[in-house]
Amino acid sequence: MRLRKIPQAGEYIRSYPEFAIVENTDLKGNWQTIFADKQQIHIEIGMGKGGFINEMARLAPDINFIGIEMYDSVLLKALKKLVENPLPNLRLLHANAANLTKFFAKGEVSKVYLNFCDPWPKSRHAKRRLTYKDFLAVYQEILKDDGMLQLKTDNRSLFEYSLLVLNHYGMKFADVSLDLHADPNAYPDNVMTEYERKFHGLGQPIYLLAATFCSEKEALNI
Amino acid sequence: MRLRKIPQAGEYIRSYPEFAIVENTDLKGNWQTIFADKQQIHIEIGMGKGGFINEMARLAPDINFIGIEMYDSVLLKALKKLVENPLPNLRLLHANAANLTKFFAKGEVSKVYLNFCDPWPKSRHAKRRLTYKDFLAVYQEILKDDGMLQLKTDNRSLFEYSLLVLNHYGMKFADVSLDLHADPNAYPDNVMTEYERKFHGLGQPIYLLAATFCSEKEALNI
Repeated sequence: MRLRKIPQAGEYIRSYPEFAIVENTDLKGNWQTIFADKQQIHIEIGMGKGGFINEMARLAPDINFIGIEMYDSVLLKALKKLVENPLPNLRLLHANAANLTKFFAKGEVSKVYLNFCDPWPKSRHAKRRLTYKDFLAVYQEILKDDGMLQLKTDNRSLFEYSLLVLNHYGMKFADVSLDLHADPNAYPDNVMTEYERKFHGLGQPIYLLAATFCSEKEALNI
Repeated sequence: MRLRKIPQAGEYIRSYPEFAIVENTDLKGNWQTIFADKQQIHIEIGMGKGGFINEMARLAPDINFIGIEMYDSVLLKALKKLVENPLPNLRLLHANAANLTKFFAKGEVSKVYLNFCDPWPKSRHAKRRLTYKDFLAVYQEILKDDGMLQLKTDNRSLFEYSLLVLNHYGMKFADVSLDLHADPNAYPDNVMTEYERKFHGLGQPIYLLAATFCSEKEALNI
């Protein structure tokens, strides 16, 4: 998501240190200390305005959520939501996905969400896609051994690319949907993002891929 | 494909032993002897009326093709095409896919095509799907080490299932398309099957997955 630069966004964010963490590497390995309860941590990378992670945090109080965003003018929107309606299990982090190993210890995260991230359609920008192999290496480092990476997108080319890259990286697919909303009963726990609502409303299929870095042979009965 | 039973289909097929092989295990390891030229072998499993393999054989005279079909009333249609317009690089085999290791030696085949195979939508019939793991084991046995399996289908559920199964089997994806005809220039060598023409005409996306059993780390630049 790109928004116009908002002056004083950084200043506003820094005025709520109890909700928004600005590139603080001291929390590496210590994220549980800032939450009310010690429980598994799920993160969303590129949370945008935070609609998804906010609703997830409301629906799953037994999980600690961290919404990550690199643009402070965007993080600002998510922070305002949280300031208005504080949640004990949601915190925001201003950071770049490429640097996440600076902020999270090995295995500190149970699930990584990538929702409608920038498809970077030009081949020469492939390295910027959040499913590029260098990013996968980052997620692998911070995720638990059986931790899950989940991607949702409406972008066919990004999804095709991601299927190839995750497969070549040796990841095991846990779930694939090429039309998440085709059967309204298939994903009862799905939380729609702002983008998802828009593109689904336009009749476009929404793609989902969930996968682990687990290399063990599983007895998946398929 | 299911067709009504045609009486005398078996008799007709047996009257053209130069074109159609009926469950002859003697050719195992010796398929090159029945072709005019010794060249790589591509097979289609469940060729139906044979439109695809016939056109492929015309377009690629440097490849030997074998169209495989288990229903003799269906194989009959493909055979009639071949009798009318003989091709030196196309032969037909009446056999069941589950038994292919009886008919082909290890590594005798360079490519396996699965085109619009029966999706067997009920979970209890999953073992009948031509991408079920037991079938993959058959393809792995008869394919060369770098041999390719290529699936085309219009059936979303079968495609989702196949992505999961091939990934869990450890296969490396070489190509994935979630809409083969979206860009008319993307697959210039694609040969349409009868089904493909029909479902594409109805506006349905055609899915393609190509993958190898090669377990080596490849330097795929993605």
